[in-house]
Amino acid sequence: MKMLINDHSSFVSESIEGLIKLRFESLRCHHDPLFVCRREITQGKVALISGGGAGHEPAHVGFVGYGMLDAACPGQVFTSPVPDQIQAAIKYCDSGAGSLLIVKNYQGDVMNFLIAANTSDKTTAMVTVRDDISAGDNESTRGLTGVVPLDKMLGAAAEAFWPLDQLVVLAEKIVSRSATMGLMLSAPGLPQSHSRNFDIQTDKVEYGVGIHGEHGRSLESLDQVDALVAKIMVPILEKLSKHQGNELLLLVNGLGATPIAELWLVYRAASNHCEALGYTAVRRLVGNYVTSLNAAGCSVTAVLMDEEMINLWDFPVDTAALAWQ
Amino acid sequence: MKMLINDHSSFVSESIEGLIKLRFESLRCHHDPLFVCRREITQGKVALISGGGAGHEPAHVGFVGYGMLDAACPGQVFTSPVPDQIQAAIKYCDSGAGSLLIVKNYQGDVMNFLIAANTSDKTTAMVTVRDDISAGDNESTRGLTGVVPLDKMLGAAAEAFWPLDQLVVLAEKIVSRSATMGLMLSAPGLPQSHSRNFDIQTDKVEYGVGIHGEHGRSLESLDQVDALVAKIMVPILEKLSKHQGNELLLLVNGLGATPIAELWLVYRAASNHCEALGYTAVRRLVGNYVTSLNAAGCSVTAVLMDEEMINLWDFPVDTAALAWQ
Repeated sequence: MKMLINDHSSFVSESIEGLIKLRFESLRCHHDPLFVCRREITQGKVALISGGGAGHEPAHVGFVGYGMLDAACPGQVFTSPVPDQIQAAIKYCDSGAGSLLIVKNYQGDVMNFLIAANTSDKTTAMVTVRDDISAGDNESTRGLTGVVPLDKMLGAAAEAFWPLDQLVVLAEKIVSRSATMGLMLSAPGLPQSHSRNFDIQTDKVEYGVGIHGEHGRSLESLDQVDALVAKIMVPILEKLSKHQGNELLLLVNGLGATPIAELWLVYRAASNHCEALGYTAVRRLVGNYVTSLNAAGCSVTAVLMDEEMINLWDFPVDTAALAWQ
Repeated sequence: MKMLINDHSSFVSESIEGLIKLRFESLRCHHDPLFVCRREITQGKVALISGGGAGHEPAHVGFVGYGMLDAACPGQVFTSPVPDQIQAAIKYCDSGAGSLLIVKNYQGDVMNFLIAANTSDKTTAMVTVRDDISAGDNESTRGLTGVVPLDKMLGAAAEAFWPLDQLVVLAEKIVSRSATMGLMLSAPGLPQSHSRNFDIQTDKVEYGVGIHGEHGRSLESLDQVDALVAKIMVPILEKLSKHQGNELLLLVNGLGATPIAELWLVYRAASNHCEALGYTAVRRLVGNYVTSLNAAGCSVTAVLMDEEMINLWDFPVDTAALAWQ
């Protein structure tokens, strides 16, 4: 597997250097310990801090900016950030209103964010993202592309100076109304190895994979995209049907190596499926947001929206990954 | 090569259906002959119409919308649109101020756009995009990612009701100040064949490739990204050095299968190279804009900007590919 890198040991730091050069007017990088943050801290605003392994770009460093995160702590590729990074980010961002830590529900991430929170003298709260419904909806449910709508809506509320406790309530509401499932055609390939982590047979698709290529719900035959997407949508809408309402944010996320034209096909199939069951995609997004280095495939996320959430989603945002006014 | 499609024969039409579902508030699809256009035609505005083979998404259908194109005519994968499509788009978009046809300099595209223009009873002008400098700067120079800044700046001028003749002058100015070169790590794979068009050896990189995987300037050893990008930047800046000025729009474009983190690394290298030679990237863009189905690699485009061009670049835009206010 060929890659556009200098050396695997400098991959994370140099890709972040590129991001900062691209958005130097609003972002800066704090070195040793490493985190990406806004240039300006808004006084009295709750800080939103996230992070996780690198290799999922633009997540999470590409979500830092007005209307989303205040800081993101990247680990090495597919590796949790360490508590020092998170603690330093909390200290940098704190302006008296506290920090909300947004953490995908992976053991290493949760542990290190907890250590940082518990050893910090600043006020913090933590929310775990648990949108992956491939193995049911329970405490060990992983965090996937659900971070995008979560960060976006929390980001809007934080800009509007919601206090920390209300942001926690909002976060739990959004997580409970979010469902994601992914499928993978080919596995991620990492800078360390220059080869794919594992093989998926040429006529198979891995259902319910995590973003590190963790084996998912089942290995199935590669079918037409409409059929593949239908199998994703059934459990997604089953989770959401526990709530009242039929207005969705529908998000199709590419794992990084899948062409945008194919993602438009996935969106078409997902949207058709929703419509047939009486759901309407009132907000829509297609692109590469939470990726898995060089993996081909996609995930679909649906969030059951209400008026408050729609207003928050529509709030201006200015990041590398999402930008609108 | 695995793909998320139903059938190769419906690939283009269904991917466009997905795009329209995603942006139905502003876009519609005209069927038979096929083109994508805005829902609303602005009276008295010159219409901007482009097109070309499918398989380069989001180009060009993803560039239709406020601030960029009025219509795009997609051919089949890597195949020119036919004159009927272009003629119908000209007729649909015409509001009395004429149409500017923006055509990448490929023989089939140029021929079919010319036939459409010559057999239309509407006023048209045509500009050919010739930004690829891999084989020197001459009449057969191909159009690559240079369409993005060209469509964007022309789109802004058209929204400001510039007349057709002034848009042609602007287009020629932008083309003469634009330079692109690409490199490919792995070749495109098409829905028809489910396999790559050709192989690039595991230790090689193809320099100066076209967006269909046409062989380029040279096959070279896969080196560190800084060295690879330097080889791209030398001929790019050589072309631009013929003009006064040192302010650039610097655009890193992914061919579709290359992770965004690697594109950030490419941006870092390109930006460093420019700075060392006294150029400043006053406007910056990194993403997948003109892709080559399932190909891995990138291209770098630099446009020498002046104040007029910067103002046009900063104009609001609302398309699937670019959106800001």
